Amino acid sequence: MPLSSLSLLLLLFFSFSLAFSHFIPTFPSSKLHPELITSHSSSLSNGLYKTKFFTQTLDHFDYTPQSNHKFQQRYLFNDTYWGGAKNNAPIFVYTGNEGNIEWFTQNTGFMFETAPRFKALLVFIEHRFYGKSVPFGGNREVAYGNTTTLGYLSSTQALADYATLIIDLKKNLSAIDSPVVLFGGSYGGMLAAWFRLKYPHIAIGALASSAPILHFPGLVSPYVFYDTIANDFRSESENCYNVIKGSWKEIEDAGKTDEGLKLLQKSFRLCKNYSSDALESWLSAAWTYTAMTDYPTPSNFMNPLPAYPIKKMCEAIDKSAKENKTSRFERLYAAANVYYNYSASATCFDLDDNADPHDLGGWQWQACSEMIMPLGVRKDTMFPQSEWSYQSRSDYCQFAYDTTPRPHWITTEFGGYHIHQVLKRSASNIIFFNGLRDPWSGGGVLKSISKTLVAIVAKEGAHHVDLRYSTKEDPKWLTDVREKEIKIIASWIKQYYRDLQ
Amino acid sequence: MPLSSLSLLLLLFFSFSLAFSHFIPTFPSSKLHPELITSHSSSLSNGLYKTKFFTQTLDHFDYTPQSNHKFQQRYLFNDTYWGGAKNNAPIFVYTGNEGNIEWFTQNTGFMFETAPRFKALLVFIEHRFYGKSVPFGGNREVAYGNTTTLGYLSSTQALADYATLIIDLKKNLSAIDSPVVLFGGSYGGMLAAWFRLKYPHIAIGALASSAPILHFPGLVSPYVFYDTIANDFRSESENCYNVIKGSWKEIEDAGKTDEGLKLLQKSFRLCKNYSSDALESWLSAAWTYTAMTDYPTPSNFMNPLPAYPIKKMCEAIDKSAKENKTSRFERLYAAANVYYNYSASATCFDLDDNADPHDLGGWQWQACSEMIMPLGVRKDTMFPQSEWSYQSRSDYCQFAYDTTPRPHWITTEFGGYHIHQVLKRSASNIIFFNGLRDPWSGGGVLKSISKTLVAIVAKEGAHHVDLRYSTKEDPKWLTDVREKEIKIIASWIKQYYRDLQ
Repeated sequence: MPLSSLSLLLLLFFSFSLAFSHFIPTFPSSKLHPELITSHSSSLSNGLYKTKFFTQTLDHFDYTPQSNHKFQQRYLFNDTYWGGAKNNAPIFVYTGNEGNIEWFTQNTGFMFETAPRFKALLVFIEHRFYGKSVPFGGNREVAYGNTTTLGYLSSTQALADYATLIIDLKKNLSAIDSPVVLFGGSYGGMLAAWFRLKYPHIAIGALASSAPILHFPGLVSPYVFYDTIANDFRSESENCYNVIKGSWKEIEDAGKTDEGLKLLQKSFRLCKNYSSDALESWLSAAWTYTAMTDYPTPSNFMNPLPAYPIKKMCEAIDKSAKENKTSRFERLYAAANVYYNYSASATCFDLDDNADPHDLGGWQWQACSEMIMPLGVRKDTMFPQSEWSYQSRSDYCQFAYDTTPRPHWITTEFGGYHIHQVLKRSASNIIFFNGLRDPWSGGGVLKSISKTLVAIVAKEGAHHVDLRYSTKEDPKWLTDVREKEIKIIASWIKQYYRDLQ
Repeated sequence: MPLSSLSLLLLLFFSFSLAFSHFIPTFPSSKLHPELITSHSSSLSNGLYKTKFFTQTLDHFDYTPQSNHKFQQRYLFNDTYWGGAKNNAPIFVYTGNEGNIEWFTQNTGFMFETAPRFKALLVFIEHRFYGKSVPFGGNREVAYGNTTTLGYLSSTQALADYATLIIDLKKNLSAIDSPVVLFGGSYGGMLAAWFRLKYPHIAIGALASSAPILHFPGLVSPYVFYDTIANDFRSESENCYNVIKGSWKEIEDAGKTDEGLKLLQKSFRLCKNYSSDALESWLSAAWTYTAMTDYPTPSNFMNPLPAYPIKKMCEAIDKSAKENKTSRFERLYAAANVYYNYSASATCFDLDDNADPHDLGGWQWQACSEMIMPLGVRKDTMFPQSEWSYQSRSDYCQFAYDTTPRPHWITTEFGGYHIHQVLKRSASNIIFFNGLRDPWSGGGVLKSISKTLVAIVAKEGAHHVDLRYSTKEDPKWLTDVREKEIKIIASWIKQYYRDLQ
């Protein structure tokens, strides 16, 4: 059975003594995709797409007997708006992330809203080993059992899956000359960008939203992730930032006595007594995921969130402070409550909750094989200091999977060093969207590389906010971002048709 | 033990009844690289390069326990001319083909002759499973034993080997910012082109000489290979062409009686009695390999060859005809003698000779897994008609390796369809050299795609003639080709340095 992300994170957390035992998210864990299950989803989830399966090859790059193993890969399909093969109408493909493709599909409203304009066919491909696309007969116990099977879960195999599936699909639709445009957010955005780089003969361009393709060793400061979160909070209120900053020591001190632990349980409405470490992880998760999803409109992840949730958190802290009525713990609880209990339905909080409703657990393996994305916290900021340690990651991976990561593989395969210099001479047609409120934006491409490799940066934006369904409350900057993306995609398609003639 | 190429070809030949039992070369077999072991080689083979080994990962794309197996990959290294890391002086890398890298190195004089001009470091990397770069402890019996091990012999793994080795080498030399330029001929040229397409962050450009990257199903006429050979002969003499064309029926007829077989043995100086099929293969090989190596200067493959060997063959046929003294068999023998016995040292010919001095046998496996390069002979030409049959190939591969090819993988991974339209928007800095005398030129890129994707076509050229050592007898067109290549490479390097600033 796959261990859930959270339990693995806690394992990581408990197994190795970090400088400070706060929550260290691997990217993107089950809690790193606070996607909105919008009002669209209930009406759409039935009529929105057809589910199909493609017989996929386990290993594209080798020819061993095991390589030839086949599995069923799920993809979702909507041809409502398609202009058809005869017209070479476009095909929009979402390159699935580390989870159930239905969840990503329901949260990528941008594609549904844009399809009619382009008469595009919509295809959402599920990533191998996630959702219903599990090799070895769909048997999770086997597939996730050990590295002899789990070892086939890799980004390059996933890209080759997409290549194979798209070519086959186009053949079956007699749509060989329909242009394919890729969409993806987060890890899905990394895959979209990488696919355009590696398979330009299959896709004419990619919208890579919040894709931290530079968040790898040697390319990025490990501090950038938590620096961004700290800045997010500080931008709302200096007091809010300081309350959180000062909280860790107080929680640790409380954790040293029985009385203190009881106080923590009471202050944070915990269902039972938890260690201060566990509480710190729980709070870190709240600050982190709220920063990632600091959207300008209400959203719904595991629990509902208001618009501008960081502002709401800081308001909760500052209001309590002004009233001077409450302890620091109560102020923190009020803020955490925005993330964990906005609907006010919780009676107490279970910190052991290992639920993984979107089937994201496989990411832990990816973070132990090739996705080595350094995260650390610098001294004297909102989070307690914690240095990135490759050795800790490697030790954990040895312990959890009996495997040693290949920390330089991603940059060997996909590059990143001198990316501007390299790609301006060898690539085209990628949009890199990043919202600067998003802690992952620090590993993104934030400057345009050429006329056709365009960075769109939204100061106020969070994690792949552009891909979400539009709402009436969307701020102008968000509407503008989407319009800009649509214009660029239109230019790719226009150029493609011109070239085809 | 690896079966040698020739024995496998014969296996292929005997196991499946082709329409006509002439020799069908897979590409490039042990006989498809008539490389010159030049006068340079004896003096250079000692002082020309240092031999080094790199600890390579068996499987770059998976993370199974087997994937992590390591093997020693050989590379050859010459820093005589290198301007050094401090100056970011260039690194010229030869992407090794399907054979012993020493052989390719000794026959790629162009790199040695060009290095001083660019102050370039020279590196020649051996392809996995060939020469001394055999996984599984260098144990050929294991490595080639069955598909559980041989299955790791693939083009994508080889490219990833090169990427990994080059990055490591640059790190070790503290030459991170030295530009890498790739060179390769034939399959090595395909790898050079593909590497530039897939790893533009590692190599700034590639000279892909005689690289038939389009010789795959759906992209090329299967007839183009033998059409080219026929045209080569016909261009020398209509009579010569007709004598060869008429020979097959006569040989077959002779093969039907004991007396006829004796006549064949005597006419062709065979060491013993062979079937007409075997003789036809032997003759086909002579015409085919001579066309590939129809160089303007003397060369030396397994046996020495004169300059313009097709002309010499046709002169031998035509002269006999004019003298009207000899039978068709004797005329053919005189021509075949140019290829098989130019040094006049043979007393009789052994058609069972399975020697594979350059260790090219692994190509047969590659031709059974991913290198499905269709070859057939159209009706009424110099060779007997023979239709390309994927099924025959597949049946053979099932028989020989218990494996079924993946005929569409190469075009899925590397493209080819609409190549001009695709690459002009997504790639740069590749020279595609082709000589039109070379039967593989039909699968090459013969028209420039953009200002930086340049086709150089030499009407009089044969298989990667540009990469050979220069001689005083080189015709002007060949000197011009090399000068043009050098100018283009210089422009890549200049641009790279400008970008670096």
